[in-house]
Amino acid sequence: MAAEREGVDAVAGARAPNRDEAGVEFGRIVAFSDGVFSIAITLLVFGLFIPEGASNLTHTLLNQSSDLFAYGISFAVIGKLWLAHHRFFAALARFDGTLMGLNLVYLSFIGLIPFSSQVLGDYPDGRAAVILYAINLACVTATFQAQIIYSDRRGLIRSEAREVQHRYAGPVNFLTALVFVVSIPVAFLSTDVASFMWLAIFFVGARLSRRIAGASG
Amino acid sequence: MAAEREGVDAVAGARAPNRDEAGVEFGRIVAFSDGVFSIAITLLVFGLFIPEGASNLTHTLLNQSSDLFAYGISFAVIGKLWLAHHRFFAALARFDGTLMGLNLVYLSFIGLIPFSSQVLGDYPDGRAAVILYAINLACVTATFQAQIIYSDRRGLIRSEAREVQHRYAGPVNFLTALVFVVSIPVAFLSTDVASFMWLAIFFVGARLSRRIAGASG
Amino acid sequence: MAAEREGVDAVAGARAPNRDEAGVEFGRIVAFSDGVFSIAITLLVFGLFIPEGASNLTHTLLNQSSDLFAYGISFAVIGKLWLAHHRFFAALARFDGTLMGLNLVYLSFIGLIPFSSQVLGDYPDGRAAVILYAINLACVTATFQAQIIYSDRRGLIRSEAREVQHRYAGPVNFLTALVFVVSIPVAFLSTDVASFMWLAIFFVGARLSRRIAGASG
Amino acid sequence: MAAEREGVDAVAGARAPNRDEAGVEFGRIVAFSDGVFSIAITLLVFGLFIPEGASNLTHTLLNQSSDLFAYGISFAVIGKLWLAHHRFFAALARFDGTLMGLNLVYLSFIGLIPFSSQVLGDYPDGRAAVILYAINLACVTATFQAQIIYSDRRGLIRSEAREVQHRYAGPVNFLTALVFVVSIPVAFLSTDVASFMWLAIFFVGARLSRRIAGASG
Repeated sequence: MAAEREGVDAVAGARAPNRDEAGVEFGRIVAFSDGVFSIAITLLVFGLFIPEGASNLTHTLLNQSSDLFAYGISFAVIGKLWLAHHRFFAALARFDGTLMGLNLVYLSFIGLIPFSSQVLGDYPDGRAAVILYAINLACVTATFQAQIIYSDRRGLIRSEAREVQHRYAGPVNFLTALVFVVSIPVAFLSTDVASFMWLAIFFVGARLSRRIAGASG
Repeated sequence: MAAEREGVDAVAGARAPNRDEAGVEFGRIVAFSDGVFSIAITLLVFGLFIPEGASNLTHTLLNQSSDLFAYGISFAVIGKLWLAHHRFFAALARFDGTLMGLNLVYLSFIGLIPFSSQVLGDYPDGRAAVILYAINLACVTATFQAQIIYSDRRGLIRSEAREVQHRYAGPVNFLTALVFVVSIPVAFLSTDVASFMWLAIFFVGARLSRRIAGASG
Repeated sequence: MAAEREGVDAVAGARAPNRDEAGVEFGRIVAFSDGVFSIAITLLVFGLFIPEGASNLTHTLLNQSSDLFAYGISFAVIGKLWLAHHRFFAALARFDGTLMGLNLVYLSFIGLIPFSSQVLGDYPDGRAAVILYAINLACVTATFQAQIIYSDRRGLIRSEAREVQHRYAGPVNFLTALVFVVSIPVAFLSTDVASFMWLAIFFVGARLSRRIAGASG
Repeated sequence: MAAEREGVDAVAGARAPNRDEAGVEFGRIVAFSDGVFSIAITLLVFGLFIPEGASNLTHTLLNQSSDLFAYGISFAVIGKLWLAHHRFFAALARFDGTLMGLNLVYLSFIGLIPFSSQVLGDYPDGRAAVILYAINLACVTATFQAQIIYSDRRGLIRSEAREVQHRYAGPVNFLTALVFVVSIPVAFLSTDVASFMWLAIFFVGARLSRRIAGASG
């Protein structure tokens, strides 16, 4: 009774639902999360907009290359995060108020990416821009890891999906989170190395974590 | 016949539907409302955008702390409001034109939050900014209360969900509305006290209203 | 065969579908249309945004009253249009490529409302702003009327919904379209009279058209 | 096993799904894609926004004609692309990680259209603006063609939909892609000819490709 009430408080009244209720609620929460992802990914284009009346358009457009780079990176990042988020939610058997609260905090950091991306595009050589981007993505991956750990401990993950979570999704996200956290101090020394670390996640990350999964499996 | 026609007028032709129709219409209206919520919550990031060409990026970003605070508060507020809105709609057995009209007015105040939040972030010490934010949220909670009261009087709430509405959702929202209304004159004296009152709702509100529910139950 | 091919051309390959296909396609087209409506209605808030660094915030905010008026009017207008659009699509039994094309043109005018509304809010006394708004809504209602007439002639409306369309939805929208068209030349003489004509639609329009329906029924 | 793992890497863990899983995943991916389309199409309006405080509103608005032209063209283009995208996804029997990755790259170019459109509207006589728009749409159609070819080779298209894809959707998109690619060098000579080539696709393209289909069929 007390536990149920606590769940009610945490997120304005979402109780730990049984499976049938979960079907409806899951749909809504996933749709809301998907909405935030698709809007955030489409708002990235605002980082590219140029003011009316530039004297030399060709020159102005060619100078947008760092904006375009930030757009491309951020589109890939949000796309990957969306796919990982979907996979995680597909593995859930149940959810509770705390998980929904964690998801909302996670989404608030997803919603910040268009801002961090705009700053990165406009100030590609600025240390502060690189650090801001690293902090943003470290927060995203950390709050995702928190969701993974919490739902694993509370037994919210479907038993058949559990092993995949343990051997694949968990370690991959942990590694990604680690790289972003480590890239924050690294950016103070060299923004290029920090940016390179991010790119490395895309190409090396999956391969490495597969080896981890293979070794522990 | 007259009543049905009135319902038709109120919102461009939505009749008080029977349950089967309601299933389809509910889905649409909830999806539309969810769309407004998820877009509004993602547009909050525009309050953070900084102009290209700042001379000192680190300085500029650190000065964004009040923007970030406004972003965090508003994200939490819209997230909570969305969950409460969902819970309310899940409790509805039927709806009519008036309720849909009230919902639209409610959504128009939800849609204003990115504006109020941007002003609050850019002018954190401005009395007018705090008052604007308080008025915005007072209108949101007041129009939500109007929906709760109206649907309760017209018997639009499912009988099994009625008690929960009476003892929980109704009082919680009434208390929240009251705090925001009272914080408007308070902001004329001290914007800090007004802001503190808002934070208090998140942490004390649920606890208090549970006591109310317990006492009256 | 020729007819099917024509349908294919008109909207990049959407054939006139049978009922089962229609179920899936309807859902998609309605969802896409709803998306445009909910995004357009939420983008209205951009008309209110104020620049950072205003010397007198209270003064600046109080000067936003015309922006707020434009926001309120436009929110009500888009909300009403969305409800009418939904009602119309609920009455359709089938659709074809031409109707989808008309719907896309219709949506392109819906998508312009945030622009017309921003101009109206920023230049409330400007004749050009009032004329722009009137033209925008005249185009919206005219392309909606075109959809109603076309689907009626081609027999795309469900037989049981036909009478309601003839007696209610058709005349109401025709009247609304007429008022907006007439308000364009009127705005050259007096913008106040033109604005008043729009408000009159909300309050008098439905009543009048009901009388029309009653007289012809 | 190796192939499955590769699929997992490619897009953060989306395995080549069986039909039942596909039903759920398809819905999500289509909804996400639709979200990007509907947001991008509605963001086009930002290309029209005018600054507050113009001295001569009528003059300013009449000068927006190129912005309005860009809005209209881009709305039609995104609308057509959305319909073609839907048709393609409706023809899929299965999907895999690579296709999802290609779709994400495709969507990133769709998301750029509001930017290219804004530049085209603000600099209608600028060669660079026309070339930018042509490059954007060449990338869109090329990545769409890549999806068509890939899914055809891997046998991801439903057998009954295959012939239509071969004779209709494939050639039409290939022709469209070709025109946009060719219009890039043409724009260096004459931006008018390049723009005319785009318009020609809408009116002549479908007719021509039908003939191709007829000849090869």
